[in-house]
Amino acid sequence: MKPTLAITMGDPLGIGPEVVVKALKQDDLRNLCRPLVIGDEGVFRGTAAALGSVLRIAKVEGDRLAGEPGEILLIPASSLPVGKSLQDLPREDSARASFAYIEKAIRLAMDGKVQGIVTGPVSKEAIHRAGIPFRGHTEYLAEVSQTKKFVMMLAGERLRVALVTTHIAHAAVAPSLREEEILSVIEITGRGLKNFFRIAFPRLGVAALNPHAGEGGLFGDEEREINLAVEKARAKGWNASGPWPADTLFYRAVQGEFDAVVCMYHDQALIPLKLLHFDSAVNITLGLPFIRTSVDHGVAYDLAGRGLASPRSLEEAIRLAAKMAVRKQEAENSLGQGAGSRE
Amino acid sequence: MKPTLAITMGDPLGIGPEVVVKALKQDDLRNLCRPLVIGDEGVFRGTAAALGSVLRIAKVEGDRLAGEPGEILLIPASSLPVGKSLQDLPREDSARASFAYIEKAIRLAMDGKVQGIVTGPVSKEAIHRAGIPFRGHTEYLAEVSQTKKFVMMLAGERLRVALVTTHIAHAAVAPSLREEEILSVIEITGRGLKNFFRIAFPRLGVAALNPHAGEGGLFGDEEREINLAVEKARAKGWNASGPWPADTLFYRAVQGEFDAVVCMYHDQALIPLKLLHFDSAVNITLGLPFIRTSVDHGVAYDLAGRGLASPRSLEEAIRLAAKMAVRKQEAENSLGQGAGSRE
Repeated sequence: MKPTLAITMGDPLGIGPEVVVKALKQDDLRNLCRPLVIGDEGVFRGTAAALGSVLRIAKVEGDRLAGEPGEILLIPASSLPVGKSLQDLPREDSARASFAYIEKAIRLAMDGKVQGIVTGPVSKEAIHRAGIPFRGHTEYLAEVSQTKKFVMMLAGERLRVALVTTHIAHAAVAPSLREEEILSVIEITGRGLKNFFRIAFPRLGVAALNPHAGEGGLFGDEEREINLAVEKARAKGWNASGPWPADTLFYRAVQGEFDAVVCMYHDQALIPLKLLHFDSAVNITLGLPFIRTSVDHGVAYDLAGRGLASPRSLEEAIRLAAKMAVRKQEAENSLGQGAGSRE
Repeated sequence: MKPTLAITMGDPLGIGPEVVVKALKQDDLRNLCRPLVIGDEGVFRGTAAALGSVLRIAKVEGDRLAGEPGEILLIPASSLPVGKSLQDLPREDSARASFAYIEKAIRLAMDGKVQGIVTGPVSKEAIHRAGIPFRGHTEYLAEVSQTKKFVMMLAGERLRVALVTTHIAHAAVAPSLREEEILSVIEITGRGLKNFFRIAFPRLGVAALNPHAGEGGLFGDEEREINLAVEKARAKGWNASGPWPADTLFYRAVQGEFDAVVCMYHDQALIPLKLLHFDSAVNITLGLPFIRTSVDHGVAYDLAGRGLASPRSLEEAIRLAAKMAVRKQEAENSLGQGAGSRE
């Protein structure tokens, strides 16, 4: 009954392998789910050895995902050199491998072989340099699963944020804001909080784009578009409000006024989130046909191989994905039908 | 020897009068400076009475600013109705009065009659509607004092932020970023930390504009302009670094890595600042020919008249202005010359 989670190892030259090893050596995490690592066998075993971690790793042969309790399943999707020679690997090669892990994980999820995906850190820049057009995990997962409407949400203990735009230039944000998309983010976020966080009537605070919400149009008028979306969401029965001046909205959310803040751009959401939850926030993609969580940190190339990386964000990501999978299964069971990706 | 501080009462229909009364009834604040309130006599006395505060108020006649120790000096710059009829006052009239207080305070500071200005909250929107072109206190003070290079800084106990752009639309930020201005903000901030905060070698973290600092130009390239400014600042001997991804920079600053963060736009600075220092941050204008601090909150029309407003930001603003004035005087004394605005 435990959900099987595909955990991508992340960029082999980054801290991904280390945080996966550190997270999975913990019994309680392995008890919440059946972990299936998708990565590089040599690098993964080498990292575990370097960290002195004894992990029971079962390499998956063919399509058989079964393993003994406590075992970590492993599907290799690259064969990189290990040890010192790994450090000489061009970043592009490492990035290409990290991309292969994502591709494999998506296939397993789309085929219903796993109940969720948890992704380790990759470098968008390095993947891009390796010649693969890639704007980010979230965008790629949506594209491959042909999901038009999806939402990047980040959740910490005190604050949850959902993003209307993600990895685009600051200058591109204002022209991108459309009522329909903002409305869709409000709805997907609301549904996510209902289905996966069991909040019956989620309170959604929607952020303004301009300082002081534009002060009545004095500087910027995108708030009109945001306001239309909020009005429509309310008409549809959602407990949404705004657009609120962003500088005080996060404080209000943390004080308990909102269950999530709908943000117009990346840093509007990530600045307060990382200030409060530097290494413990989880990145969730809502709206996909499968469950997906992720670490919310980068590859940290400069920290790799030193044994100093914190696995906390990955631990939280695995924990949350497992919880989400259980709730999804419960919801499906209560509907009395066996549809979807059940084992 | 105590500095005389001009304290503008703020918009009479807002929480300004209330927070001024609440702050000035405290002995320790009156001991740090000689407070000179610029506002409306009827409204100020009425607010004190409504709050049950006994204040010794000495109305200033002519140019004589002297008063007994413990007294609060008052210069009326409007004559509004008081009591219930005040509530019927159009917001534009109230806003016009609030603007008159600022004008009077600037004149006193420019004439060297006061050692600093502490401003209460006004509504940019209401002042604008009253037909007065006004983009904000900071911008107006700079204009009237013919200051070309000035910086809005906000300081709390754990975080200080300085702004490259202030009250402009989100869409106007990217096209406004120029190397020279960013450099100037770095330098004015550095000098402010040296002169008024006694930090000998201030560490300045400069924020990127785009998410992930643009990830090597993948989304946005304004980081090149910021980088040039940082390089020039370093060449001039300043301990500046960046552009750093904004989502982790504030966490790093709070952890002690930087004395101030130089921010590219209003909400980039204000979101983390207000999250940590909701009602205790002080707004400082650096680079003016006189000392100026301010509350960092708005008029809060909906909260006015209920006795619930927190005076904490104003208290901190008065405390900091007094401290800054003393340090300025000490610096001038140590130079052995009596230049400038000394009593």
